[in-house]
Amino acid sequence: MSSKWFTYDLIAEDPATHARAGVLHTPHGDVPTPIFMPVGTKATVKGLLPEQLKGLGAKIILANAYHLSQRPGADLVAELGGLHDFMRWDGPILTDSGGFQVFSHGDFVRLDEGGVTFRTVDYDGSYVHWTPEDNMAIAQSLGADIVMQLDQCTPYPAERAFVERAVELSSLWAERCARAHTREDQALFGIVQGGMHLDLRLRSLEHLESCGDFPGYGIGGYSVGEDHAIMFETLAPLASEHMPRHKPRYLMGVGNPTTLVHGVACGIDMFDCVLPTRTARMGCAFSSAGRLNLRHARFAHDRSVLEEGCGCPACRGGFTRSYLHHLVKQREMLGGILLSLHNLHFLLELMRQARTAVIEGRYADFVRRWDELPGSADW
Amino acid sequence: MSSKWFTYDLIAEDPATHARAGVLHTPHGDVPTPIFMPVGTKATVKGLLPEQLKGLGAKIILANAYHLSQRPGADLVAELGGLHDFMRWDGPILTDSGGFQVFSHGDFVRLDEGGVTFRTVDYDGSYVHWTPEDNMAIAQSLGADIVMQLDQCTPYPAERAFVERAVELSSLWAERCARAHTREDQALFGIVQGGMHLDLRLRSLEHLESCGDFPGYGIGGYSVGEDHAIMFETLAPLASEHMPRHKPRYLMGVGNPTTLVHGVACGIDMFDCVLPTRTARMGCAFSSAGRLNLRHARFAHDRSVLEEGCGCPACRGGFTRSYLHHLVKQREMLGGILLSLHNLHFLLELMRQARTAVIEGRYADFVRRWDELPGSADW
Repeated sequence: MSSKWFTYDLIAEDPATHARAGVLHTPHGDVPTPIFMPVGTKATVKGLLPEQLKGLGAKIILANAYHLSQRPGADLVAELGGLHDFMRWDGPILTDSGGFQVFSHGDFVRLDEGGVTFRTVDYDGSYVHWTPEDNMAIAQSLGADIVMQLDQCTPYPAERAFVERAVELSSLWAERCARAHTREDQALFGIVQGGMHLDLRLRSLEHLESCGDFPGYGIGGYSVGEDHAIMFETLAPLASEHMPRHKPRYLMGVGNPTTLVHGVACGIDMFDCVLPTRTARMGCAFSSAGRLNLRHARFAHDRSVLEEGCGCPACRGGFTRSYLHHLVKQREMLGGILLSLHNLHFLLELMRQARTAVIEGRYADFVRRWDELPGSADW
Repeated sequence: MSSKWFTYDLIAEDPATHARAGVLHTPHGDVPTPIFMPVGTKATVKGLLPEQLKGLGAKIILANAYHLSQRPGADLVAELGGLHDFMRWDGPILTDSGGFQVFSHGDFVRLDEGGVTFRTVDYDGSYVHWTPEDNMAIAQSLGADIVMQLDQCTPYPAERAFVERAVELSSLWAERCARAHTREDQALFGIVQGGMHLDLRLRSLEHLESCGDFPGYGIGGYSVGEDHAIMFETLAPLASEHMPRHKPRYLMGVGNPTTLVHGVACGIDMFDCVLPTRTARMGCAFSSAGRLNLRHARFAHDRSVLEEGCGCPACRGGFTRSYLHHLVKQREMLGGILLSLHNLHFLLELMRQARTAVIEGRYADFVRRWDELPGSADW
């Protein structure tokens, strides 16, 4: 599975934390880590043009293989030249397998020997049967730079026996995905599952390491409803002591700024989450003072920008909280757009500053300063 | 009312039609005419940043005094530094009085000696009483470069007696608006009403000319449901033979590309309409082949851009009809955004080319070529 296309260079390791800075090389460009990846589920980061994402300094974006397999279909995307051409993003792309979406279908999911059957209740309601091989065929048709194995994501709370079976299934599927995956210009990442059980997490990781030379690892099954502290009880030892040093570590579906800052301290390299864009569309802005709900009447006459000194198009452009309040209250598209630009910039910039702090060997201080911010607990 | 801030220079008159090219000078910049003005009803052209409008070459945009008086309120906009500061558009702005909106409230409208009472059914349902003086106070608080008198817009069809009374009321209100309007850095345009009756139109115009030195004239009450041909029966003689030569003529709420091309031939200088952005949000694109409904399945595999050779961000950016079909079908914001950029570019570019044709004295040929396009009747 190792490929000349995908190498990960470790640039710096922080002396007082487990934070690292690196560069992940891909066929569509280099990805400096740690990094936040904006989510473009259906081949579009909602409301933003690719050039606006470039302007924010986004280096890699996500799309979702499940959603794209439903509409417009992986074959159509392949016919149109692959995902990069289709959505006009010429930088690196990562596609999630859709495992998370499949298992969020609840009662409509049935496992069998070969794979999983689920009902596409969010599309036309038809039944779909996926084997890991089917999933890899979709991933290869879409043509992202990085693709994730099909896995079973467990909810929280969950019975240990249930989580254990999910780890076993995910391990089996990792092997089958690895065998089915043949595109050399595409990296396949394995996914560590195991819920909030460290021993199961380690068993999952061990199996992935034994079954092949994955160029990177996802860590799934966190941020599924548990407290921040509960996640770190197992994530911290897993990432800081057990994950291979020379491969990128991707904490899937996370998350909020404080979790990113602490995740980097554990040695996480990559993050993604819909939070910045979804909360933006609901009228909320990230700030060092915490989350600002622009719907609130207290912003009606507020002539300051979202965050003084912020370099995002909304703040640099001088759009006031008063104007944003008006847009959000009137359900104007521009409200969600400006807040999405701001929130994505917030996380991208946070990771750029984190990276610099790691390179300069002062990441412990960076975390301390973050935790002292009035808004750091407000996530 | 005449002001050093607002002068209109006539640059060229076409030899074979009544088309003209000019420049309208305003405190926030020059407006080359003929021109299409994108509509930003609630202080935002839906889905687009001001810098994107600049990128399209928009020179002046609209907002609506009625809507802004409701939310966020004219006083609040004034407190925030006026409309330009509020919405971060530093070019010229024109605000419509809201007369059209008031009289579209139907059964909820009552006229009296002093003004009009209507129920804001599209907001909190409260009753509002407006005099022409109230309306001018709102216009002056908002602070656009050009504001329109309060008028009574008549529907089509309408009884002649009803239209006649509306002309009389609009004339009376024009005088009262002119007396109440004091901002020298803001131009007040009178509005010619009169429905589809040329004699009433001329009576309306005559009264406006007699009651003051308006720096420009709106022509209202067209595009209210009548056929294109019926409008031109009265619009053509009105604009080409009777409107004063050295003042800009603004055909309000119009419209589609073919009407713009023919309107310019009658001597119209300014147009506005929600059509390009509203149809965009419904999934439709302007093209020389007519209107393209991107929801249609025939675009699913279409790898061409909306219009070959088009310089808009959607076409220049290489976004295919296939991708746009996907976005529109999935109700992704980016679909409406890309189509809005394309449709606005289409009308802005059409007027730029029309202006060049007028200056080069070949506008009759320009109209003929337009009418020969396969899509010219498709509006």
